[in-house]
Amino acid sequence: MTFMKIEEILRETENLDTALKGKDFLLTWEKTMAELKSVMNIALALKKMRDNNISPRVFDSGLAISVFRDNSTRTRFSFASAANLLGLAVQDLDEKKSQIAHGETVRETANMISFLSDFIGIRDDMFLGEGHKYMLEVGKALDDGYQNGVLPQRPGIINLQCDQDHPTQSMADLLHLKEYFGSLEALKGKKIVMSWAYSPSYGKPMSVPQGIIALMTRFGMNVHLAYPEGYELIPEIVDIARANAERSGGGFHISNSMEDALKDADIVYPKSWAPFSIMQQRTKLLKNGDTKGLDELEKVALANNAKFKNWEYNEEKMKITKKGNALYMHCLPADITGVSCKEGEVSKDVFEKFRIPTYSEAGYKPYVIAAMMFANKFENPAMVLSQLLKRNSPRIFR
Amino acid sequence: MTFMKIEEILRETENLDTALKGKDFLLTWEKTMAELKSVMNIALALKKMRDNNISPRVFDSGLAISVFRDNSTRTRFSFASAANLLGLAVQDLDEKKSQIAHGETVRETANMISFLSDFIGIRDDMFLGEGHKYMLEVGKALDDGYQNGVLPQRPGIINLQCDQDHPTQSMADLLHLKEYFGSLEALKGKKIVMSWAYSPSYGKPMSVPQGIIALMTRFGMNVHLAYPEGYELIPEIVDIARANAERSGGGFHISNSMEDALKDADIVYPKSWAPFSIMQQRTKLLKNGDTKGLDELEKVALANNAKFKNWEYNEEKMKITKKGNALYMHCLPADITGVSCKEGEVSKDVFEKFRIPTYSEAGYKPYVIAAMMFANKFENPAMVLSQLLKRNSPRIFR
Amino acid sequence: MTFMKIEEILRETENLDTALKGKDFLLTWEKTMAELKSVMNIALALKKMRDNNISPRVFDSGLAISVFRDNSTRTRFSFASAANLLGLAVQDLDEKKSQIAHGETVRETANMISFLSDFIGIRDDMFLGEGHKYMLEVGKALDDGYQNGVLPQRPGIINLQCDQDHPTQSMADLLHLKEYFGSLEALKGKKIVMSWAYSPSYGKPMSVPQGIIALMTRFGMNVHLAYPEGYELIPEIVDIARANAERSGGGFHISNSMEDALKDADIVYPKSWAPFSIMQQRTKLLKNGDTKGLDELEKVALANNAKFKNWEYNEEKMKITKKGNALYMHCLPADITGVSCKEGEVSKDVFEKFRIPTYSEAGYKPYVIAAMMFANKFENPAMVLSQLLKRNSPRIFR
Repeated sequence: MTFMKIEEILRETENLDTALKGKDFLLTWEKTMAELKSVMNIALALKKMRDNNISPRVFDSGLAISVFRDNSTRTRFSFASAANLLGLAVQDLDEKKSQIAHGETVRETANMISFLSDFIGIRDDMFLGEGHKYMLEVGKALDDGYQNGVLPQRPGIINLQCDQDHPTQSMADLLHLKEYFGSLEALKGKKIVMSWAYSPSYGKPMSVPQGIIALMTRFGMNVHLAYPEGYELIPEIVDIARANAERSGGGFHISNSMEDALKDADIVYPKSWAPFSIMQQRTKLLKNGDTKGLDELEKVALANNAKFKNWEYNEEKMKITKKGNALYMHCLPADITGVSCKEGEVSKDVFEKFRIPTYSEAGYKPYVIAAMMFANKFENPAMVLSQLLKRNSPRIFR
Repeated sequence: MTFMKIEEILRETENLDTALKGKDFLLTWEKTMAELKSVMNIALALKKMRDNNISPRVFDSGLAISVFRDNSTRTRFSFASAANLLGLAVQDLDEKKSQIAHGETVRETANMISFLSDFIGIRDDMFLGEGHKYMLEVGKALDDGYQNGVLPQRPGIINLQCDQDHPTQSMADLLHLKEYFGSLEALKGKKIVMSWAYSPSYGKPMSVPQGIIALMTRFGMNVHLAYPEGYELIPEIVDIARANAERSGGGFHISNSMEDALKDADIVYPKSWAPFSIMQQRTKLLKNGDTKGLDELEKVALANNAKFKNWEYNEEKMKITKKGNALYMHCLPADITGVSCKEGEVSKDVFEKFRIPTYSEAGYKPYVIAAMMFANKFENPAMVLSQLLKRNSPRIFR
Repeated sequence: MTFMKIEEILRETENLDTALKGKDFLLTWEKTMAELKSVMNIALALKKMRDNNISPRVFDSGLAISVFRDNSTRTRFSFASAANLLGLAVQDLDEKKSQIAHGETVRETANMISFLSDFIGIRDDMFLGEGHKYMLEVGKALDDGYQNGVLPQRPGIINLQCDQDHPTQSMADLLHLKEYFGSLEALKGKKIVMSWAYSPSYGKPMSVPQGIIALMTRFGMNVHLAYPEGYELIPEIVDIARANAERSGGGFHISNSMEDALKDADIVYPKSWAPFSIMQQRTKLLKNGDTKGLDELEKVALANNAKFKNWEYNEEKMKITKKGNALYMHCLPADITGVSCKEGEVSKDVFEKFRIPTYSEAGYKPYVIAAMMFANKFENPAMVLSQLLKRNSPRIFR
């Protein structure tokens, strides 16, 4: 029965025309619909296999390197779980230095750590205009090493969050929606509200909202982006979302009122982020090591945030949504009013109502990462998964 | 020959009526005699298998998470060795924050790290009334996640030391005694002295002496607890030891004189700990972040300790024991007079005489941890071990 | 075709009379020519196997411990890669304390971490007269534990850089030269210049130049050591190099002029190091925790270094070498003028010309480490590798 379900997924995947092999996974908008579907299907197949004690291990040895330029527990564990599931050992590259290393150092280090490595997962979301650039630079260095015979394989790069996109998050979110509503088809026309929400902290990256609007618009969803005036996202990515919606037959709308946006919403994703202009100033100050300037900016930003404490998602707001029961999403951890902070993104009761679904949402991330790795390594992932199903080697001895 | 020895252990284990599967291993006094014996037997079988290059690996992939809220080299390596032996990769959860995280954070984090994890090893011995409570809380969070379908498996928790018990230590100690004296039967009536000893530091956890008195009393041993007035342990656990002794036909005695206690002792375990009342005050001060109060408490406690420098285990004291040659035990590292400190728990010559046995004692710990993991995963561990013996897959290629 | 090439290497290796099993790899000058050749052949065979997706994994489980008393990215990754390739998990022993631990602590810790460990890789290059001594001490402690039945196996120690030698580096360098020039035979008579070069930092270890002059002289190379007056290496090791050259029919010369040394050089290795006398003073000051003295010494040393800024390897200097095109080597990272510093060891253009070869040079290190491990474990490594070739188990599923 499970075998049949997995085989069904694989049959569907086989027909998808993809070119993921040997490619980095940096931004969802660089990938075709077939490729995104393929990654989701592989993720689901891997999950179902593991849930049924069938090991999808394909590496006998090999390293998966993680580079975290920001603290992270969830993504670190997701990456470690994905690597381990496929048979790779995680090795952390500890970049304690706060300065942005570029040029020669990146080129050399990328090669030095990659002689026996299959993947490099990078989280670099602190500096606007830097994270994605850094990943491209690492990629170029690896190309150089591979083409010159230094590296026996070209390690694939997985974007674990950059200044532009957070593809492992948004893909896990999409997979959650697909499973929750039954199919990708069922998502068409569904109204999803990606809304700014108040948080007592400032400087949260924009990659989650950007990733959400750019991805969900491709699947015919009716995406509403809501934020207080001044909390704009990177304009180029907003343009991508708009164009996506046109192509997919979905919708894309921006509003400066949470309440307006929430009307008839099927899904809500209330989350804080720092505005584009603040991030620009912050990046400049960080680069110059201007701690005084940073302190002042923080004060200004927090004072500005404080004007929008009413941007909290709570019972009142929930009532506005479709049947008063829109699916609540969050990448976690959420700033929960009265729990993790005095006033936050979401009220305690609403969060508690959707706590378990947000956990399930997060649970897809390790499999999405594993799927990105899998698709990077095999020309025909569906066929390899089929062979693994046949191999039927248990994860836990039986 | 080895196979026969292992098969004998397994036959003995098969007949034990246990319910360890899916259960956390937090306190030895929550486990039945059959369960304790089973864990020891599994540990021994695993050790003998590995010593004979037979791999007991049962996981093809999976994570074992370690949470250390206190520094540790020995336990860290024991946990890593155990996980690795069974096929799991260790992933550290780095909890740098000194505050005691509870509530929502624990509930969420426990789930977020557990999607593909099989075990969580926790060391939390700094705060009286906290460590065990924390482990229960993590367990409840995992139950919640598992029951709600968030986690495909319920990771088992291994107590790597809490405020009450140190089961991986006391079980390794017991296994050491069993092997040293030949059998559990042979331990009946043996006099073991768990004695406080002087150390130039203060604030050492009480979990080792508590674990020892609560465990050894169950096996019919004649347990003597000795300490200077004021160095009491947690009363409830002393009561457990007393009740155990009554049930098992062993003995349990408290004395305020090391010399008195040592008379005719078969085994001595001299080790420093902080008194209950000091630990209570310390926990309060730590919670309030009262560094000044902590400094003052340290002064008071050290001054009090200094009154009992004669509580050193040395040649003089050893002469009092049975045939002047009681087996010396320690969880290591010991405070050795003239070696690791000016005046300490044990004299240099006595320690040196028993150095190798203390190393052997420690050597059981990785296998005890592995056995706890093993028993948590398999309904019938003896049968699975039998199958692994038959599989006869080498740890090192041959 | 690849199989034939590997089998050829193995046939050659089989005939080498070696006694590497169970021995630590600390200093190349303690090993016979047959042993050095064997390690290089094993390294090459492992590399070719992995490059052709044949897994040389020989451990089903086991730990490889790394002890880094100095920061390191490259060596850390090399060690991790080697361990992982053979099937071992890496466990770091974090020795944060700056003091030099000796005696009881070393003896005990070495045993406590080794119950299920197969290798300990140690980097300890900060203190003159300490690193090698420390490794010997760890080795003795392991012997003691093994002989007394505490350890089921005697973990092998791999020197990842000490105060005297850097064997994993020099062996990787030699393997690079062998592959570059076609054979060890081809290296005979080749002129290699190990030259001091200017760097804006001070206190770089002497183990690389010492390792190079002591190793290359054994293979009949014409080794020229060049440095400004006062930058002497450890005299005993210079004597070893001189004696090696005499035995091998190679040459060994010291000069105080980079230009003189470079004449007709086939290979150049320009690299900064701190002079012997400075290292002696530094070690003394470090031991005494004399930060003020260290600051003063740094000033003196840097001022002295600054007199020799013309010791930069650049186009001008390169012209002096054979056909103006000597092979440039470096252990990386190099201090590149105008790239990683204002004035450094090598000019930007010369480094760029040889950048890829220096990467390839570094790429041998993981395999040299794996070969040292391999030779430590198997009586007849060539035979085992032959069996692994026949096993033909893929590294990546196919």
